[in-house]
Amino acid sequence: MDFSIPDHLQRLIDTTRAFIDDEVIPLEPLIPEGAFQANLHRLEAARQKVRDLGLWAPHLPQRWGGMGLSLLEFAFLSEQLGRSPLGHFVFNCQAPDVGNMEILIEHGTPEQQERWLKPLAAGAIRSCFSMTEPEHAGSNPTQLSTTATLDGGAWTLNGHKWFTTAADGAAFAIVMAVTDPDAPEHARASQLIVPTDTPGFEHVRNIPIMGHPGDGYASHAELRYNACRVPQDHLLGARGAGFLIAQQRLGPGRIHHCMRWLGICARAFDLMCHRAATRELSPSKPLASRQTVQTWIAESRAEIHAARLATLHTAWTIDRHGVYAAREGISLIKFHVADVLQRVLDRAIQVHGALGITDDTPLAWWYRHERGARIYDGPDEVHKSVVARRILKDYTP
Amino acid sequence: MDFSIPDHLQRLIDTTRAFIDDEVIPLEPLIPEGAFQANLHRLEAARQKVRDLGLWAPHLPQRWGGMGLSLLEFAFLSEQLGRSPLGHFVFNCQAPDVGNMEILIEHGTPEQQERWLKPLAAGAIRSCFSMTEPEHAGSNPTQLSTTATLDGGAWTLNGHKWFTTAADGAAFAIVMAVTDPDAPEHARASQLIVPTDTPGFEHVRNIPIMGHPGDGYASHAELRYNACRVPQDHLLGARGAGFLIAQQRLGPGRIHHCMRWLGICARAFDLMCHRAATRELSPSKPLASRQTVQTWIAESRAEIHAARLATLHTAWTIDRHGVYAAREGISLIKFHVADVLQRVLDRAIQVHGALGITDDTPLAWWYRHERGARIYDGPDEVHKSVVARRILKDYTP
Amino acid sequence: MDFSIPDHLQRLIDTTRAFIDDEVIPLEPLIPEGAFQANLHRLEAARQKVRDLGLWAPHLPQRWGGMGLSLLEFAFLSEQLGRSPLGHFVFNCQAPDVGNMEILIEHGTPEQQERWLKPLAAGAIRSCFSMTEPEHAGSNPTQLSTTATLDGGAWTLNGHKWFTTAADGAAFAIVMAVTDPDAPEHARASQLIVPTDTPGFEHVRNIPIMGHPGDGYASHAELRYNACRVPQDHLLGARGAGFLIAQQRLGPGRIHHCMRWLGICARAFDLMCHRAATRELSPSKPLASRQTVQTWIAESRAEIHAARLATLHTAWTIDRHGVYAAREGISLIKFHVADVLQRVLDRAIQVHGALGITDDTPLAWWYRHERGARIYDGPDEVHKSVVARRILKDYTP
Amino acid sequence: MDFSIPDHLQRLIDTTRAFIDDEVIPLEPLIPEGAFQANLHRLEAARQKVRDLGLWAPHLPQRWGGMGLSLLEFAFLSEQLGRSPLGHFVFNCQAPDVGNMEILIEHGTPEQQERWLKPLAAGAIRSCFSMTEPEHAGSNPTQLSTTATLDGGAWTLNGHKWFTTAADGAAFAIVMAVTDPDAPEHARASQLIVPTDTPGFEHVRNIPIMGHPGDGYASHAELRYNACRVPQDHLLGARGAGFLIAQQRLGPGRIHHCMRWLGICARAFDLMCHRAATRELSPSKPLASRQTVQTWIAESRAEIHAARLATLHTAWTIDRHGVYAAREGISLIKFHVADVLQRVLDRAIQVHGALGITDDTPLAWWYRHERGARIYDGPDEVHKSVVARRILKDYTP
Repeated sequence: MDFSIPDHLQRLIDTTRAFIDDEVIPLEPLIPEGAFQANLHRLEAARQKVRDLGLWAPHLPQRWGGMGLSLLEFAFLSEQLGRSPLGHFVFNCQAPDVGNMEILIEHGTPEQQERWLKPLAAGAIRSCFSMTEPEHAGSNPTQLSTTATLDGGAWTLNGHKWFTTAADGAAFAIVMAVTDPDAPEHARASQLIVPTDTPGFEHVRNIPIMGHPGDGYASHAELRYNACRVPQDHLLGARGAGFLIAQQRLGPGRIHHCMRWLGICARAFDLMCHRAATRELSPSKPLASRQTVQTWIAESRAEIHAARLATLHTAWTIDRHGVYAAREGISLIKFHVADVLQRVLDRAIQVHGALGITDDTPLAWWYRHERGARIYDGPDEVHKSVVARRILKDYTP
Repeated sequence: MDFSIPDHLQRLIDTTRAFIDDEVIPLEPLIPEGAFQANLHRLEAARQKVRDLGLWAPHLPQRWGGMGLSLLEFAFLSEQLGRSPLGHFVFNCQAPDVGNMEILIEHGTPEQQERWLKPLAAGAIRSCFSMTEPEHAGSNPTQLSTTATLDGGAWTLNGHKWFTTAADGAAFAIVMAVTDPDAPEHARASQLIVPTDTPGFEHVRNIPIMGHPGDGYASHAELRYNACRVPQDHLLGARGAGFLIAQQRLGPGRIHHCMRWLGICARAFDLMCHRAATRELSPSKPLASRQTVQTWIAESRAEIHAARLATLHTAWTIDRHGVYAAREGISLIKFHVADVLQRVLDRAIQVHGALGITDDTPLAWWYRHERGARIYDGPDEVHKSVVARRILKDYTP
Repeated sequence: MDFSIPDHLQRLIDTTRAFIDDEVIPLEPLIPEGAFQANLHRLEAARQKVRDLGLWAPHLPQRWGGMGLSLLEFAFLSEQLGRSPLGHFVFNCQAPDVGNMEILIEHGTPEQQERWLKPLAAGAIRSCFSMTEPEHAGSNPTQLSTTATLDGGAWTLNGHKWFTTAADGAAFAIVMAVTDPDAPEHARASQLIVPTDTPGFEHVRNIPIMGHPGDGYASHAELRYNACRVPQDHLLGARGAGFLIAQQRLGPGRIHHCMRWLGICARAFDLMCHRAATRELSPSKPLASRQTVQTWIAESRAEIHAARLATLHTAWTIDRHGVYAAREGISLIKFHVADVLQRVLDRAIQVHGALGITDDTPLAWWYRHERGARIYDGPDEVHKSVVARRILKDYTP
Repeated sequence: MDFSIPDHLQRLIDTTRAFIDDEVIPLEPLIPEGAFQANLHRLEAARQKVRDLGLWAPHLPQRWGGMGLSLLEFAFLSEQLGRSPLGHFVFNCQAPDVGNMEILIEHGTPEQQERWLKPLAAGAIRSCFSMTEPEHAGSNPTQLSTTATLDGGAWTLNGHKWFTTAADGAAFAIVMAVTDPDAPEHARASQLIVPTDTPGFEHVRNIPIMGHPGDGYASHAELRYNACRVPQDHLLGARGAGFLIAQQRLGPGRIHHCMRWLGICARAFDLMCHRAATRELSPSKPLASRQTVQTWIAESRAEIHAARLATLHTAWTIDRHGVYAAREGISLIKFHVADVLQRVLDRAIQVHGALGITDDTPLAWWYRHERGARIYDGPDEVHKSVVARRILKDYTP
């Protein structure tokens, strides 16, 4: 067991960290709700600098224009990117595009890769992943009402989706739809590529979340597929493999989420310490002199440190032994890191007092928009039951 | 000790509850951020119905057009009003006006009462209370930089305030300003009435909080007093008594806050139970069948019940024995009820899943806007230290 | 709603408190594990003083030699008694005798009352209640294997019980046994009086709990009923009513437990404050100056205060409206007060440092012996589910 | 970063684990309180098997008869040993002897090593470490009243100590005493070797802790040094270096504690899962089917996993970069792992129900005797303040 970080990786981490500090954090005041499109040119300028530095799409293989990092290496970078709400977008490794790129690499035909992956990897277009439906509990992704039927060489999709992140402005959606209703539960659904300009693709609304519908990349859409027809070759992967592909995507996706959350934790921790050290309760008596604040800082450090090692351990396991071998860790970090995230954010806000609930720091943004961390990708309660039942198998007589 | 509720009070509670359900909750979709002014006429219509029902300003003495309830009686009504973010406003007992009315009744001259209290009690104007300053920790309200100097029969105010709730559209502010810088710490400040159309009264901005600056009553302003002059008779209460008056106002104000929070808890609890009982995980297997959801419901009920009795006990003590005798309870319920509030809201959101973070229920509104409950009126950590030091005096050798 | 305490009750409370302080707490060093019998004469001397003061058996009707208090009045006294592990015993209102007295008053025949209740009320004998079985989860008291069959004018009991509190030295047991195996689930069991000198009554052992088996009243026995025969008239209450009687007993019994726990909380709180105020970290810098200690004191006070009102409210509801009307409160306080108890004890120990885990204070005793508070009378998790399901009925479509 | 465990280490871990399961856990019923000496021969027999297997004293250099493991390697073994309360003793790496061996290796003269270290390493004698004093807060180890004065070629010790673990039956104590009262605070104390048969060495009592004084190795003594004289050459290390040596000892000692706690966690987790999987609530419906139990199992696994990696990371840092570089981790794991330990034990007991508080499992033992984990080595609250203040230095303007 060796916890040391190789020099080349440490340099990448340092460069990334500096770039976030110098080029990305100054853009944060641009991100009030609903201002994504209006400020896109500023973000594009930062993206160009990332390309120039050779840091573009760190998760992608080099043949697709990325850095070709292992998952563990990318995890370290992802933590740095997560320190700003804009970080992953600027480096073109933001969800859901990052997952869609993975699916296209793994399951796309050469034609699909040429048409969809290439511009996505280049940052020329955006995409979305359309799975969750308002009529079904998100905790059970095998329950879907959206259907796709094949006739005359084309798929016809009908259905209702919501929480399709970043659909507003996306060039295409990867849609989970039931293609084989009579198959076994886990083999009913397939994934299909649906360009958003297809007739029948209806963007109902960006859902107002925590007070605002957002816009562009920073939004979550309600969609309807109204007899929406795409050619037969828009099937992505094998017919009936939709659920399986979605599952495979979860492992690396979990690392992305958790390291991003740990980046948020790192920034919130910094802000908390900075505020504590500089805010004076009375002359020369800083907030940092209060034992409660000290306690929050110590506990946050310990919790972040431990949760971070658990996440890195899972990334390493995926790299070394594959997703299946890592499935317990993948489940555990989901709820464990989300819990740490919420506690650290809460403490950081409390240390800031009234300032903490204003938009003068990114804390209030994360407080609102990461409340979902315990809900999306399946509520934490479900993950706990699933992992416990798996563990308990070894004890059952 | 007798926990029964007299019939006349129970009838008032029932009437109020029904009015909130039938007339106020249907208005809630009007309250997205920034829409207060645009929808004011709808709220005014509801206010008129309240007047017609004889429920107007339940906290006010009858001579000022109110119902003349005791604090304990008002507490029960306040809980019902708190079930909607619009309740207190519709009944004209919303903070900060409710506190300002109390100050004017207790300390205003007949002329001040005629000019300011009368229209305020009638709901014809709004007001604000301008105390907190960005340069000083809110936990120590004796630290103020805003000054008021008396010369030529007028007070000249200079200073910088923020988190002056509802200043946007208010007719006047009650301002805490240092009038006697050389007096003992608690006798330096006075309260002054400053009409908002006074030259030098600068409304800098509504502070963006949790993603939005809000507007009208639903906002928190940053203000500057730039050589703002008001006549000598705008002093409210005795010179140097500003801090004392503010303190006296805290007792009943604490009951108002806590019973409002308990009203939020009651509504969130209802929403949580309703969702649990009606959301199906699979056919005929509702979310309510999950033990974790049951645990949250049971714990929420127990915590709300106990916190509610503690708050009512404090209201009763103020009515019976005065604010001084009740000061321990007043401190305790601040942090205790705020803590229950946060936990109940968090559970209610989690039970709603993705729906819980949308604006389709009021939960996300409260989640954002009541995060401040642990901060405003002094951070909970300060209250804990204060009350503990008072208790510990009895044990000190 | 009126929270005032009548003068006559306040005097009783004060007298009881003083007696505990002056006469009972000094006896506490006598209570190391296994020393009950050896020190019984000291406890009997204290009991005689209680009789002389007219405070004997405060829960009992006057015709049985008690004070005839209402449940609410007794609750206040019980809190005072709970401040010492010896309090309830010295006043002859200790579990399980207190519950057995209630059953005998309510359901005993005149002959049973004369033979068993009279000496029990007088403190001349002790008793036990034999329900829990090692083979069945305590959370489901309808599952019992112990049987009693009637033939030849006598009941023959066979079965295995454990956690029969205070069986060691008891004169008789009230035993729950299945008499009607084919009846509906809740009508299968009856209660029978079994003198402990009946042949076949086997005291297997006092179960070693938290390091010690204890002795006499302070023990929890494993028992076997080996073809143990008692006359037909030893049936207590109606045949098949065993479960119902046990249920009825739970309401007042819950108040007894919770007020005793609140008495423990009160004492632990006192000890914590005293220690904080007198232990010096360095010259003239007491432990009480630490914010974390202040926080624990403030939170403990708030939690104890709220939980206490909830318990008193439930006692009042039972007095006024009966056990059935109070059943929600009865369930809620079980887990709510047990939770407060555990937190307060934990904080009090931590404030004492190494001293807190020694036997120089009663804290370590309670820490060990009240860990069971979340387990006995049914684990808290079961109570939470039960009360939640009852609440959810009102929301089910 | 590489989380893999080398084969040779994995074999050692497996062997150790099997030995604990097969040879040590069966001895646990021998450990009721006060039975150490009476059963010592059984433990000695197990020790001989350990020697025969070549697993003796894994932490010691080979020249002293140990296995010569690195701290990280020993950490893995220590976790296995911690699965039984008897594990470390049987492998002769129990506190406080393990720390005393380290001090003697690092600071002892050849003569001291020959006389004290050799038999200690061989398991022929035991020792104790005598630092804490009842008159001073354990959180500040520079405050000591025990003195040692040098005259006539001998040191005369006077003082009062308590919580001197395992003094009962020890051959010698390493005593912290003030030798230079006028030196700077951290240079006042020295360490001295005091044979326990020295006149004036008074074993006052084994302190009753959690209901029992214990005996032999399993005890914590109160001691008095009454003009206790030892030769000048019994000074251990440099004069005035007592505090420094104690500090150095803390780093590895912290790893020992934390990995032992993690071993307890592992065993408690196993017991919890086994109980959940095998205890039936009703026919074929095991306790494991309850969501609350599943939640506890999942959360325990996540917390143990993360805390374990944090501890291993600290051990690795000490091995690679030294104690000073690892000091933040050393502070963090103290309170973090102790917190996890307490939570896991609490859940495991609750899952066992009434059985959990009996002595039929080791859970109740650990519940009692590891409550001190948050107190000994300095209360957690102090560690939190210390580590936070160190972190905050980087943020102070």
